[in-house]
Amino acid sequence: MRNDDREVNELRNVTIETDYVKHPEGSVLISFGDTKVICNASVEDRVPPFLRNQGKGWITAEYAMLPRATEQRNIRESSKGKVSGRTMEIQRLIGRSLRAVVDLDKIGERTVWVDCDVIQADGGTRTASITGAFVAVVIALGKLVKKGSIKELPITDFLTAISVGVLPDGNEILDLCYEEDSKAQVDMNVIMTGQGEFVEVQGTGEEATFSMKQLQKMLALAEKGVEDIIKLQDEAIGEWADVIRAKSGVTK
Amino acid sequence: MRNDDREVNELRNVTIETDYVKHPEGSVLISFGDTKVICNASVEDRVPPFLRNQGKGWITAEYAMLPRATEQRNIRESSKGKVSGRTMEIQRLIGRSLRAVVDLDKIGERTVWVDCDVIQADGGTRTASITGAFVAVVIALGKLVKKGSIKELPITDFLTAISVGVLPDGNEILDLCYEEDSKAQVDMNVIMTGQGEFVEVQGTGEEATFSMKQLQKMLALAEKGVEDIIKLQDEAIGEWADVIRAKSGVTK
Amino acid sequence: MRNDDREVNELRNVTIETDYVKHPEGSVLISFGDTKVICNASVEDRVPPFLRNQGKGWITAEYAMLPRATEQRNIRESSKGKVSGRTMEIQRLIGRSLRAVVDLDKIGERTVWVDCDVIQADGGTRTASITGAFVAVVIALGKLVKKGSIKELPITDFLTAISVGVLPDGNEILDLCYEEDSKAQVDMNVIMTGQGEFVEVQGTGEEATFSMKQLQKMLALAEKGVEDIIKLQDEAIGEWADVIRAKSGVTK
Amino acid sequence: MRNDDREVNELRNVTIETDYVKHPEGSVLISFGDTKVICNASVEDRVPPFLRNQGKGWITAEYAMLPRATEQRNIRESSKGKVSGRTMEIQRLIGRSLRAVVDLDKIGERTVWVDCDVIQADGGTRTASITGAFVAVVIALGKLVKKGSIKELPITDFLTAISVGVLPDGNEILDLCYEEDSKAQVDMNVIMTGQGEFVEVQGTGEEATFSMKQLQKMLALAEKGVEDIIKLQDEAIGEWADVIRAKSGVTK
Amino acid sequence: MRNDDREVNELRNVTIETDYVKHPEGSVLISFGDTKVICNASVEDRVPPFLRNQGKGWITAEYAMLPRATEQRNIRESSKGKVSGRTMEIQRLIGRSLRAVVDLDKIGERTVWVDCDVIQADGGTRTASITGAFVAVVIALGKLVKKGSIKELPITDFLTAISVGVLPDGNEILDLCYEEDSKAQVDMNVIMTGQGEFVEVQGTGEEATFSMKQLQKMLALAEKGVEDIIKLQDEAIGEWADVIRAKSGVTK
Amino acid sequence: MRNDDREVNELRNVTIETDYVKHPEGSVLISFGDTKVICNASVEDRVPPFLRNQGKGWITAEYAMLPRATEQRNIRESSKGKVSGRTMEIQRLIGRSLRAVVDLDKIGERTVWVDCDVIQADGGTRTASITGAFVAVVIALGKLVKKGSIKELPITDFLTAISVGVLPDGNEILDLCYEEDSKAQVDMNVIMTGQGEFVEVQGTGEEATFSMKQLQKMLALAEKGVEDIIKLQDEAIGEWADVIRAKSGVTK
Repeated sequence: MRNDDREVNELRNVTIETDYVKHPEGSVLISFGDTKVICNASVEDRVPPFLRNQGKGWITAEYAMLPRATEQRNIRESSKGKVSGRTMEIQRLIGRSLRAVVDLDKIGERTVWVDCDVIQADGGTRTASITGAFVAVVIALGKLVKKGSIKELPITDFLTAISVGVLPDGNEILDLCYEEDSKAQVDMNVIMTGQGEFVEVQGTGEEATFSMKQLQKMLALAEKGVEDIIKLQDEAIGEWADVIRAKSGVTK
Repeated sequence: MRNDDREVNELRNVTIETDYVKHPEGSVLISFGDTKVICNASVEDRVPPFLRNQGKGWITAEYAMLPRATEQRNIRESSKGKVSGRTMEIQRLIGRSLRAVVDLDKIGERTVWVDCDVIQADGGTRTASITGAFVAVVIALGKLVKKGSIKELPITDFLTAISVGVLPDGNEILDLCYEEDSKAQVDMNVIMTGQGEFVEVQGTGEEATFSMKQLQKMLALAEKGVEDIIKLQDEAIGEWADVIRAKSGVTK
Repeated sequence: MRNDDREVNELRNVTIETDYVKHPEGSVLISFGDTKVICNASVEDRVPPFLRNQGKGWITAEYAMLPRATEQRNIRESSKGKVSGRTMEIQRLIGRSLRAVVDLDKIGERTVWVDCDVIQADGGTRTASITGAFVAVVIALGKLVKKGSIKELPITDFLTAISVGVLPDGNEILDLCYEEDSKAQVDMNVIMTGQGEFVEVQGTGEEATFSMKQLQKMLALAEKGVEDIIKLQDEAIGEWADVIRAKSGVTK
Repeated sequence: MRNDDREVNELRNVTIETDYVKHPEGSVLISFGDTKVICNASVEDRVPPFLRNQGKGWITAEYAMLPRATEQRNIRESSKGKVSGRTMEIQRLIGRSLRAVVDLDKIGERTVWVDCDVIQADGGTRTASITGAFVAVVIALGKLVKKGSIKELPITDFLTAISVGVLPDGNEILDLCYEEDSKAQVDMNVIMTGQGEFVEVQGTGEEATFSMKQLQKMLALAEKGVEDIIKLQDEAIGEWADVIRAKSGVTK
Repeated sequence: MRNDDREVNELRNVTIETDYVKHPEGSVLISFGDTKVICNASVEDRVPPFLRNQGKGWITAEYAMLPRATEQRNIRESSKGKVSGRTMEIQRLIGRSLRAVVDLDKIGERTVWVDCDVIQADGGTRTASITGAFVAVVIALGKLVKKGSIKELPITDFLTAISVGVLPDGNEILDLCYEEDSKAQVDMNVIMTGQGEFVEVQGTGEEATFSMKQLQKMLALAEKGVEDIIKLQDEAIGEWADVIRAKSGVTK
Repeated sequence: MRNDDREVNELRNVTIETDYVKHPEGSVLISFGDTKVICNASVEDRVPPFLRNQGKGWITAEYAMLPRATEQRNIRESSKGKVSGRTMEIQRLIGRSLRAVVDLDKIGERTVWVDCDVIQADGGTRTASITGAFVAVVIALGKLVKKGSIKELPITDFLTAISVGVLPDGNEILDLCYEEDSKAQVDMNVIMTGQGEFVEVQGTGEEATFSMKQLQKMLALAEKGVEDIIKLQDEAIGEWADVIRAKSGVTK
């Protein structure tokens, strides 16, 4: 049994609140149980130097935690004067994942900045960030469509991320909370589209290994979790859900 | 008339929500109109090197804004690799102000870390931070009292901060929103105790000056605002309000 | 009685030596007792990016101490690789104060860099810096007038800064030396024009507070000190003093 | 057909030269085609603070490229004053992978520093680094056994890494060179033990996605590649190969 | 007697291997005994800002050591986030020396980046770097001549560097290995042209001094060493050696 | 003829003012013509980690210029966040030179910090720094003797530095001012003891070379200059001059 009585293939309570803060073009507060992340998408009318004058856009992400998002207070990265390797890995992952479902050729010479700020952490902050960021980006790009800045919503499919893992007792589980994550032998993040394609698969055994069979079980759990989450993203993005379904061929 | 129809001596809608996030010993979400700041107080069982083995404690503060707390997205200070002069000024001010009403000799060799993170900005973020931080610190130290770690609440008085200023038309006003702040000729932050003593007075004329008479009018407005805000702090800290009133001699 | 036998409203010996080093357009060595600061004003024929092509200029300041300006040697900020919060606060204050009496629209697209380097410290280094910097800036801009680069001296009034404070015995005093400053309950810096207008007022109670009455007494002391110092600035800037008096209406 | 006429499941020419430089306890020059990496393992008789007085050791890795290891010269990270996100990701991956096959409880309070310096790059530098680093670590720890500092070789299994990917034509391939890597739709790094267990699986679709079927094909290719490479590691570590085979149950 | 049985005026075994790595325009592995340095010369088609639009070029150098090039592992400068004073001194010296024999007016608006990376250190790394870098630069510029980018080889003379010193027994010696260097009373680096002119002379007594007579003996040893090394450089640069001899008047 | 009518072997006007600022143990303002440097020596009762518990001391130096010490304003190194290569070279040189004439075994576990701050620059700032720093160190250590902290003055000889060079017309000259320095083909700094021994010789041809004959002429000029300067140092250090002469055998 899991410490919060969930089934092995059961998500925590997931909620997605849109228009959370007022300035960003897209703003979302996403919760996976006690993990809470503010995901803001900002549209800037220029691109980084390596893309200038190519008529296409860019999406980039930054990730941070409030110092006391965690049980122990963390030193602020601005005070340390540098961003940790963990943070860099996560923000590179978020940006790369979003770029897999956004047609950058169709957003013009614009950069979408995605800021994922964890205000409360209880495991799965990077997958919650990606899942919430997708919603924020859809809303931000949707506003560009409504303003007539771009013709159509340049999103090719849903994008959802979830963690899976293997507990010391050998059981594969879905959506690890912090307590589970800290004792898990294997930790895997799976990022998938609505059509069930993989965008990213990252499985890690810290001082442990895993077999092909375990890998397959974890991927199956992830697939189930993604299906559940897409329903919530669907509601959150409202009118744009049908547009994405039409493009990607994903049915309700 | 002010752009949001307020009287010159009228505060914006101020709310203080306690227990906002779960890990910190004291956690508050404070709003002054559209300005929203998460104020977390964390207690650490050690002091900085300059205070070791002296039997007394310390309070220090850090301040930051989410990149898109503002109309234009700001570059994250962790990405720039350094903290701006403005941020340093504000966090020094918050810490210094709190230390004026906390009896550091009575908290033992502990550091209270106060993190003020602005999630939405519309003027007055530093005064909102101080006002919210006071509540978070009272709650955090109150928990130490309840756990028996310290004997009594080491808070000598209420602490409240508010901005006042002079508009280009020469009118002195209370609690400037961003639009007012950006056009004001004089900007002043006043930090006061429940007894009406000053903790800090900072008045600045950017490319302008102000007279003794204007200074006095601004201080009077501040005094009025502080009285209004203390009522809200009083509610937020609940049972501890009477303890502080008893010590400081402030009446309801 | 004060430790150097001064009256409560008496300045230390203040001297202003012009043309102290040869390269800067304006160069001053200012002393307030044992506090000695080199104030150099340099004119650069361009402005920071945010002011380009607007036909107006800018004044910015930097402040530093020699490592052994103080009783204990301080680590050089260049060795630490970052500027402290205290230094940033001071240099922002110096720049902001100077901008209040210089008509930036009349200096063309130029930046005046003011460097205040404390070679010996005994309290009041920031107010000495502002007082000396004003003289250096007048001399530097005066040279631009003589060269015909600008039509008239773009200075609207005198600018002087002084510290006041409250000793533990409750006495308000003018121009604190280091020994007084380190034990003072309240420390206030007042920056004023020749007309007696405030440019900046910063009063701080470190682990203490102050009343409206104390504030008023300190402001009165500051006003007296400013009058005394302006006479010395008047001599130091020579021919330009009359020009400023004519503009500002300040009489001898 | 691949640009260098290899079969889809064929490795480049892989060589492992031991004792490459003289000072490190273990030193290897590994080549995968034109990719050449110096892997040095250094043993230090202390552990990082978080492990002190626990009787166990640590393995950590650093990764860098010579500026002209690549077609275009890269700016040196020491000149930029910070390590890139890509570098951090890679060095975290190398360290984590090695820790999966080293019994840290049996190396005493020692840190093994692994330095992977790419002197020539043509794709697959991170997998070559891990593969070479394993050999360097075995040699370094073998020396500790010979000196009597530790009782037995604390290596639980072979460790090998290889890249696989999907070309734009949809073909899955093994061991991508730079030209293939830069056009691949999917890029996956697989790190495995001699027993065929996964240590880490990282599959990434940059602006693309991949199906479960493609994932399985890539994993099969990786498995084949790992078998081939282990034979070379076996030769390189000489006498220690049998010790590892005995522990892990891997047969020749 | 020296610890490796060399005569006082005898070089260690010096070898120069060209085309060591494939991407740079000029690439050399130079060894002085156990000191091994990779010297890569890269040609970039632009110059630093201070030289723009002047029709001339620039040569600049960077120097680094692999962490375990030395007996004790050194912390990587990229990890420390800054380049040490020693490294800066060496890279400034290498660049300055090379510029003394390259006619910068004849290389067009190009920068030659010279990267000297020490993979194994046993004394004399800076002189080996200069000696190897000269060869790499000749090869790189020779390729520009062959491609027709520049008309003729813009090298005015050979450039060679060697260390000399004084042992505690008072003997002057040539080409110090690490063991000799660490006990030497005087350490001198001499950089000379093929014509026997000095480019740079740096003699240092760390906690010791030296006389004019000792200086002269060291310079004579250096002159002898330089003659020996030029023969090896001559071979390494092949066809370009005659071109340089013709220009400089140096005979075989 | 030189631009200021000096003979080729003539120093500029050199003055040494002691007790320049009040806090340091030794404080000197030294001028070589228009070059003015404040040299402060501070004694700290501890040594850097690498010397702990060895009963000996250390001398280290820092060097900086005020931003407007030069004709063009330089960016402050604290603002840039790092110390330039030139500055590092100079401060390493100053420290190394001083250590050659101070018996570190006799100063106990103390560090002498030498701060050389150039307030006005006109060539020769590093040699002026060393020459002034020697005087400051003698005074600081002399105070330790008087206080009884150390038994005798641990200075083995005088220490003086001077620049020499070769003008474009081929003339060797002594003590270059900035104008001469900027056009010189060869620039050499010579650091000598009272006995005429070399502590450091650094000759550099920037885009030029020099012959053995030129080297000898420059060294002869330096020797002459050093003799003249020692007379001034002798006066500045007063009573300690005889102590040093007695130890070193240098006669008046």
